[in-house]
Amino acid sequence: MPELRKDPIIDRWVIISTERGKRPVFFGEETPPPKAGMCPLCQGNENMTPTELYAVRPDFSPPNSSNWTLRVVPNKFPALRIEGNLNKEGVGLYDRMNGVGAHEIVIETPLHGQTLSGMSVQDIQNVFLAYRERTIDLEKDKRFKYVMVFKNYGSVAGASLDHSHSQLIALPIVPRRVLEEINGGLAYYRYKDRCIFCDIIAEEKEDNVRVVIENENFIALSPYASRFPFEIWILPKRHEPYFAHHEKVDNYHDISEILLHILQKYDKVLNSPPYNFMIHTAPFGNGEIQHYHWHMEIIPRLTKMAGFEWGTGFYINPTPPEEATTYLKETSI
Amino acid sequence: MPELRKDPIIDRWVIISTERGKRPVFFGEETPPPKAGMCPLCQGNENMTPTELYAVRPDFSPPNSSNWTLRVVPNKFPALRIEGNLNKEGVGLYDRMNGVGAHEIVIETPLHGQTLSGMSVQDIQNVFLAYRERTIDLEKDKRFKYVMVFKNYGSVAGASLDHSHSQLIALPIVPRRVLEEINGGLAYYRYKDRCIFCDIIAEEKEDNVRVVIENENFIALSPYASRFPFEIWILPKRHEPYFAHHEKVDNYHDISEILLHILQKYDKVLNSPPYNFMIHTAPFGNGEIQHYHWHMEIIPRLTKMAGFEWGTGFYINPTPPEEATTYLKETSI
Repeated sequence: MPELRKDPIIDRWVIISTERGKRPVFFGEETPPPKAGMCPLCQGNENMTPTELYAVRPDFSPPNSSNWTLRVVPNKFPALRIEGNLNKEGVGLYDRMNGVGAHEIVIETPLHGQTLSGMSVQDIQNVFLAYRERTIDLEKDKRFKYVMVFKNYGSVAGASLDHSHSQLIALPIVPRRVLEEINGGLAYYRYKDRCIFCDIIAEEKEDNVRVVIENENFIALSPYASRFPFEIWILPKRHEPYFAHHEKVDNYHDISEILLHILQKYDKVLNSPPYNFMIHTAPFGNGEIQHYHWHMEIIPRLTKMAGFEWGTGFYINPTPPEEATTYLKETSI
Repeated sequence: MPELRKDPIIDRWVIISTERGKRPVFFGEETPPPKAGMCPLCQGNENMTPTELYAVRPDFSPPNSSNWTLRVVPNKFPALRIEGNLNKEGVGLYDRMNGVGAHEIVIETPLHGQTLSGMSVQDIQNVFLAYRERTIDLEKDKRFKYVMVFKNYGSVAGASLDHSHSQLIALPIVPRRVLEEINGGLAYYRYKDRCIFCDIIAEEKEDNVRVVIENENFIALSPYASRFPFEIWILPKRHEPYFAHHEKVDNYHDISEILLHILQKYDKVLNSPPYNFMIHTAPFGNGEIQHYHWHMEIIPRLTKMAGFEWGTGFYINPTPPEEATTYLKETSI
């Protein structure tokens, strides 16, 4: 059973997961990711994954059969286990709980070689809708406080399978970075009585040097204090705390259009770089809070400069976000 | 001139440094690091570096001549610039200051192929003494609040030169991670009236399952909530807030002995892995504080799992620290 352990000095929780050691990628003895025929995420290999939790099946084919355009399955090498109680306890000076949670894989396409940037807006919209459905389902489990949606694309970015997929992890705690944002947003709200994310959007539209693209419902920008070259955040223009409660009229169409645009720009300007994205949302059950605003962060993995950033929280970014924005806007796709 | 910019939501400062883009490693178009003859850090190539700031010259040879065993020089591609005023200002919603600071390279050996793990305790002690001398010198500049000492070993860990070296960055701000530790230590001190690091040392000696090695003055342990496989912290056993004020009797001998031991174990157990280390110390001028305790963190770069950790502050570690400790202790060097 994996464990959640808390750093006693800075209140950071870590998953200590022995199961993960059995994954394909570990300690440099890398098994190359499986090729198309042997890939557990490919169409026709449904028996190589655990039973599906959700799928898009345009011809209403039965679960776990071959005709699908998107599937969500439990991770075969989960960081957390779905069964059991948290059993929170102190161990001397330290704090721990059982590593209870869910870890799911969103298989974004049945085709082995396809990437998100080669998909249609509709396909990507289906990916977001899958994130929503799974989040709403996991939210019902009262042991969980947060669902983290993220994607690792490319082996440099941490992907151990080539087949295009993203992941959801349901957690009994709120990740530290999200908590920090919530606390920062709350401090600003108490001072200004406004959402800091809404204020950032207004300021960026006014300045107009870091806005990469916008449409009716979403805006993409290079953050003023970008940690990484070509880092981009996508935010809903209207105030919304929860990713999963995004308004049904748009239904993630506009963020799909913008994400596709950005990934195609990355392909062109940065030569199809590895990247990570993650969705930050308010944790379950906090009501219609005014101080937090869900958004997506996208980080191309371009530099190797991140050597010590983990240990210091200090980032050095060689590309000013204004320059990154200009590059991206000037390049045609 | 590089800039320091603050993330408005979570008070994180980032160096936006255009100069760094000119370094050898950038955006995947990697120039291989220079070979022995052409390496700017090699003996005989002193004219390829800026004028030295400190050196160990056993035969009292003149500065910038060839007979040395260790040199400290300004970084030719500095993340921050030594000249100028901070000029702190607001820009709309945002905060910035000039990227004023120092960025120095500690060339640990004149020999191109030598690594820290192949050096003597005395040689490594000279490296620590160089960190101390440079820190004390930089502390005199009232614009600086912190000197960050770190090492990137291996290209995966962010090193752009093969020749064994470490770095110092003097900053006008205290890095976020260190601040978080100080705040965590202070909260604990207010509650318990004891240093949390001293308590951790006592607990670890008692438990004796995560202590990798200790000698008279230092102890090395796998932290209870290790973020990474085989992460190790080295702490002085007596309470000391400041790295640079470490007691003169030991004079970094014992930490050198332990660091060498750990690096040799890493070489054996983990097949000479890339790694980062960094020294966390109390910021300049806070007096004899009881709630912070300097230490060194060492992180071998073994997994590619860190894809989204930057964006979430959430770590998944596949190797329990107790197992890592056992592996390291059982392997003979």
